[in-house]
Amino acid sequence: MQLSYSSGMRKVSFADMNCSVAQALEIIGEWWTLLILRDCFLGIRRFEDFVERLGISRNVLTTRLETLVNAGILERRPYDDARNRYDYVLTEKGRALWPTLTALRQWGDEWILGAGNEPLLLEHRDHGHRATAQMTCADCGEPLDARSVRVIPGPGATT
Amino acid sequence: MQLSYSSGMRKVSFADMNCSVAQALEIIGEWWTLLILRDCFLGIRRFEDFVERLGISRNVLTTRLETLVNAGILERRPYDDARNRYDYVLTEKGRALWPTLTALRQWGDEWILGAGNEPLLLEHRDHGHRATAQMTCADCGEPLDARSVRVIPGPGATT
Repeated sequence: MQLSYSSGMRKVSFADMNCSVAQALEIIGEWWTLLILRDCFLGIRRFEDFVERLGISRNVLTTRLETLVNAGILERRPYDDARNRYDYVLTEKGRALWPTLTALRQWGDEWILGAGNEPLLLEHRDHGHRATAQMTCADCGEPLDARSVRVIPGPGATT
Repeated sequence: MQLSYSSGMRKVSFADMNCSVAQALEIIGEWWTLLILRDCFLGIRRFEDFVERLGISRNVLTTRLETLVNAGILERRPYDDARNRYDYVLTEKGRALWPTLTALRQWGDEWILGAGNEPLLLEHRDHGHRATAQMTCADCGEPLDARSVRVIPGPGATT
């Protein structure tokens, strides 16, 4: 394992773990990163807008955006070549994080803020009704939760 | 905002943000915490087993477990009163994080490890087929993604 920071908060990299949760967190598990991505899904694209909305330091934001661009989650699109300014836009890989963020938001709505205190809601675009996301089985369509599945070793299992 | 650590990695608390993603991350966004929860879903319950599987320092693990217990995500169940030993078991609030972890794992499987390299797979318990979790609309049952919904202010919106 590689040493990453001297802070007691994080000493090791998860990159060597044979686990897709660990590998995902190695990229998006840094403090601030999921809030940056939340803002990307809300349509924020510009450095100054992230700074203003999040109250994040410019140094940390620069590092986080760089990590996300290097990981292929965001792409840089020049909007002012003369001044070297970019929009930061979600790629397909980035948009694929929508279920993770939505599940996290709904958990916070239900278990922390509580029903009736949701800052945001979703509307199903073509139908106009409220959209509450639910995990279902892609094969049979039934709702899934921790108790309806069991974990089995996959093709990449090592232990 | 309250100052939390002196590390450059995290300087502020997300607790005051009117956002359920921020509030959720305030509790489960710490480095290591989602991997601890992943192990809880895999049936791990004991301090020494977390230490061994994760290679996490005992100090950090103690702090993380305490946060999760205080937040009502894990509960302590004594298994050896004489030696003051506990199992750490997911509560209903904790089990409700399953969609978040599952979405994150599937994203890592698809976008980092790649198909055919999944360390774990899910089997739909009562049916025996492989269970791939999919976000669908609880109202109409259609698959949901970032493009099929629009965000509208909820009852708790402040800005």
